[in-house]
Amino acid sequence: MNQSPIDELIAGQLPGHALQQGFYRSAEIFEKEIQRIFLKSWLYVGHHSQVPEIGDFLVFHIAGESIIIVRSADDQINALINVCRHRGSRVCLEEQGNAARFVCPYHAWTYDLEGNLKGAPQVMDKIDIGKYSLRRVKLENFHGMLFINFDDNAEFEPIATDLDTPLAPYDIANTKVAHRQNYPIKSNWKLAVENFCECYHCIPAHREFAVGHGRARPVEKVTELREEVIGRAVACGLTSDRLDVTWDTSQPIGLDRDFDRYPLLKGQVTGSRDGKPVAPLLGTIKDYDGGATDLQIGPVSYGLLYCDHVVLYRFTPTAIDTTDCEITWLVRDSAVEGEHYKLDDLIWLWDVTTIADKRIIQDNQYGVNSRFFVPGPFTPMEICTQRFTEWYLDIISE
Amino acid sequence: MNQSPIDELIAGQLPGHALQQGFYRSAEIFEKEIQRIFLKSWLYVGHHSQVPEIGDFLVFHIAGESIIIVRSADDQINALINVCRHRGSRVCLEEQGNAARFVCPYHAWTYDLEGNLKGAPQVMDKIDIGKYSLRRVKLENFHGMLFINFDDNAEFEPIATDLDTPLAPYDIANTKVAHRQNYPIKSNWKLAVENFCECYHCIPAHREFAVGHGRARPVEKVTELREEVIGRAVACGLTSDRLDVTWDTSQPIGLDRDFDRYPLLKGQVTGSRDGKPVAPLLGTIKDYDGGATDLQIGPVSYGLLYCDHVVLYRFTPTAIDTTDCEITWLVRDSAVEGEHYKLDDLIWLWDVTTIADKRIIQDNQYGVNSRFFVPGPFTPMEICTQRFTEWYLDIISE
Amino acid sequence: MNQSPIDELIAGQLPGHALQQGFYRSAEIFEKEIQRIFLKSWLYVGHHSQVPEIGDFLVFHIAGESIIIVRSADDQINALINVCRHRGSRVCLEEQGNAARFVCPYHAWTYDLEGNLKGAPQVMDKIDIGKYSLRRVKLENFHGMLFINFDDNAEFEPIATDLDTPLAPYDIANTKVAHRQNYPIKSNWKLAVENFCECYHCIPAHREFAVGHGRARPVEKVTELREEVIGRAVACGLTSDRLDVTWDTSQPIGLDRDFDRYPLLKGQVTGSRDGKPVAPLLGTIKDYDGGATDLQIGPVSYGLLYCDHVVLYRFTPTAIDTTDCEITWLVRDSAVEGEHYKLDDLIWLWDVTTIADKRIIQDNQYGVNSRFFVPGPFTPMEICTQRFTEWYLDIISE
Repeated sequence: MNQSPIDELIAGQLPGHALQQGFYRSAEIFEKEIQRIFLKSWLYVGHHSQVPEIGDFLVFHIAGESIIIVRSADDQINALINVCRHRGSRVCLEEQGNAARFVCPYHAWTYDLEGNLKGAPQVMDKIDIGKYSLRRVKLENFHGMLFINFDDNAEFEPIATDLDTPLAPYDIANTKVAHRQNYPIKSNWKLAVENFCECYHCIPAHREFAVGHGRARPVEKVTELREEVIGRAVACGLTSDRLDVTWDTSQPIGLDRDFDRYPLLKGQVTGSRDGKPVAPLLGTIKDYDGGATDLQIGPVSYGLLYCDHVVLYRFTPTAIDTTDCEITWLVRDSAVEGEHYKLDDLIWLWDVTTIADKRIIQDNQYGVNSRFFVPGPFTPMEICTQRFTEWYLDIISE
Repeated sequence: MNQSPIDELIAGQLPGHALQQGFYRSAEIFEKEIQRIFLKSWLYVGHHSQVPEIGDFLVFHIAGESIIIVRSADDQINALINVCRHRGSRVCLEEQGNAARFVCPYHAWTYDLEGNLKGAPQVMDKIDIGKYSLRRVKLENFHGMLFINFDDNAEFEPIATDLDTPLAPYDIANTKVAHRQNYPIKSNWKLAVENFCECYHCIPAHREFAVGHGRARPVEKVTELREEVIGRAVACGLTSDRLDVTWDTSQPIGLDRDFDRYPLLKGQVTGSRDGKPVAPLLGTIKDYDGGATDLQIGPVSYGLLYCDHVVLYRFTPTAIDTTDCEITWLVRDSAVEGEHYKLDDLIWLWDVTTIADKRIIQDNQYGVNSRFFVPGPFTPMEICTQRFTEWYLDIISE
Repeated sequence: MNQSPIDELIAGQLPGHALQQGFYRSAEIFEKEIQRIFLKSWLYVGHHSQVPEIGDFLVFHIAGESIIIVRSADDQINALINVCRHRGSRVCLEEQGNAARFVCPYHAWTYDLEGNLKGAPQVMDKIDIGKYSLRRVKLENFHGMLFINFDDNAEFEPIATDLDTPLAPYDIANTKVAHRQNYPIKSNWKLAVENFCECYHCIPAHREFAVGHGRARPVEKVTELREEVIGRAVACGLTSDRLDVTWDTSQPIGLDRDFDRYPLLKGQVTGSRDGKPVAPLLGTIKDYDGGATDLQIGPVSYGLLYCDHVVLYRFTPTAIDTTDCEITWLVRDSAVEGEHYKLDDLIWLWDVTTIADKRIIQDNQYGVNSRFFVPGPFTPMEICTQRFTEWYLDIISE
């Protein structure tokens, strides 16, 4: 019996070791990943404050796909595939803006903000217009964070059930985007996720982060501090119940959710250059508790919740060997730049950290490309990355 | 029984609908197109006024091939494959110029203007020089327009028979090149041809063209004007008999020919910014008849014949996803720039129109690349594009 | 029975003719070449004077691989694959420098200058560190010229045995690098080697070289001069015994060695603009003998030995269609720039010659890419290139 190259790769995979080269370089595997992971998972596409008015839109890109995120009514935001149903042109050419309707620039087929075909010159009465709506994609507005899922059968409920309460005090729905920046990475997306999932590299590579964040230390080293922050968190109106339903193959795909509040170090109270506050307290938080939360929603959308700001991360493949890492910084919506926060101070930590990670990930890709690359063993602080690779192998082998 | 991917694609093609994505993205299909279409069709390569003197040459490019078009005698222009018969170097490195002979820059093998090997250092008397001529390609000088065909058995006669008379009054042999410009398009060549073949998009996308050209309107809307222009054309010494032998699979491939004089609108008499004359009348044309002719010779060479100038279009694939669109503007050979015509005015309309089409075609390619692209139905004004796709499917499936 | 594309290509190959297009364009064949030729051959990577101190390193690149060449002790220089044994990052990010040890920038796994794992944070006592050394590659320091071989079983002895004596008078071990420059070529590596191996193109293409070098003339034309230079060479302390063990399939692969001293012309005594000396005499050479030596060590490393300087050539594929040509100019180590030699004069000849070859090779690739390319016959002055292709066909068909 013949084995496919994927079967051979999977068979050759050592338990507890990094993925082999083939997983990062096979075009066939990449397309399988798109079909099995990205088209079935909840993906963060933006914050609802980016489309406050009816007709406001932004465009989300992933793996060659273009999706229009547009507000069609006070309480409805839609996700529409940006491909005309006539000859296939992009319908919307701008990255963001406001539109009363979408008129295809090719032949002027016209769609309303819900994607319904409303005009097709000369043939409007000759075609079954109900058949030619822009394809709709599921969209969930969760605490102001917009997630899409290409799978019509996908449910968001398990995420909402688990995260509604712990997220409540941050009131992310009433934040605004202080800054948004893309850091394109020349690597396969998995090397970026594998990097994000572990903090074994934080002390060697992220001095700026490691100095103040318990995440950078072995779990057993910060156990005492962890106990302390749990107490202070509750006092500040926060929860610090650990939730971790990630890389779990017993769950439907794409529903990963993680909420982990861990201690900051050396008296630091937020993620900043000096550990001092950088913006007004969020939501109903009463005071700085000396903790920070790692958040995950779906396989490639992550967050860091500080008492005074939120940092959202999103990894999206643009091709087999290029990945976008977009970061969004959120602050309380009433905060005024220059008065309540300085942008440079707000973004400093994760900007410098991401610039470093971009280089690291790219140098990782170079080495993985070598004919002599042999995947090595994961260490205890890489447990989450190891779990990611096990989950991945399970999905890709199905 | 196994189906090839091409068979599957063809089987999945809905009648009256645009081509599916696979036809634009398969390397195997692209090479088949080169072999079945481009290497068997008449292709416009230049105007004889570009090589007026013996030794004058220009180089034509298509799909990685380089062909020298060179005048070897008063009445002979040759097309020579630009590949040395020794080790395969390009023989001619310049895009145009004058040469007494072609000396390969590698080892100085030397060819005359008809491609015959005339020198091979140290081995001239040891090899059968008759075996090592540059490969010749058929070339036809038709009314001064030079067409080549890689197929040694190709006949040009059906084109000449049908078009000799209607083209005569324009005397294209006695025009000169006023301007020539390439508009490289990042798309598969078929999306460019499909765009060129239909004017359903002219009103939405080409205001500048649509205002003055009956082609931009549904056929039934300009029937009356069409009758009028036929009368005036004859009075001006022109013929307006409709000829259309395009995308006809009962014909040998590559012999497409079309001649269609249609009315200009709103008193415009030529293709220009204001519809007013931009150059001296061509050939034996007595006066402006208020019409314009769509010309096609072979599958990817097109023309627009106005009373005072000719615009020639040529689409040539440079790779599966890049296409050259070269435009040549011809005026009466005695016309003097600055005195009889202003170059900016002459080229304005088709420059602005082609810049718009380039963007449109590229945005079409983006959308067609989507995993969610579903080919839509052709409309009546896209009949010619529909016929192209049917012809194409027939050829590619043979 | 099915034939592989390689079998078909080999079967279609005409004796005495250049290689067919497929050999230059097949990704499968390219990877086979890497495995069968480049990973089994001695490859020049640098001169020991480039790493004089313990900890000095330089990085060598070939076909996506990165190898650290580092001095670990007075008499030991190592070649280490630049891929961390943990998660595969590049360990060394600089192209040259000095390091006490190599600390992976990702997770700080640390290796000594011999590649032994010396540190792995948190897990040093949990893993079998002997299993995680950087992979070593064989390295030979031959007269100061450093050669590596990825094949652990490769022997260097046959090269040393044959070349020790003829190289002795030049004392290359006691030269220094006056200049080093890379000339990246957009072509398959074989077209570069084929170009380097023959001088049939020297008169047409390299006027600067041909005027002074007997190599540019047919062998029979310089026989008399060749006799003369042999006599003078001996008088100057040089040997001129011809050695030629190249492209010999009866030998183990990658052991090619060639030493051929041939006459300079018109009273020229070295390779320079005017044929006059450009640097102090090398080693124990007593005077200019009016000759020059073609040197070859392994399949893609070449040298030109003049009485007063050495030029080393190295061709390395960076991808199927790109090749590095790095040239190193060596002079007596005591020579002082500005005082004993002028850099511009020293490098002039081979800089201008290589710039010309780069263009030639690229134009060769363009032509070879044509669907109409037909490999032509080799001529007598291309005998070495012909032998290369025969050797190549033998290896690739095994």
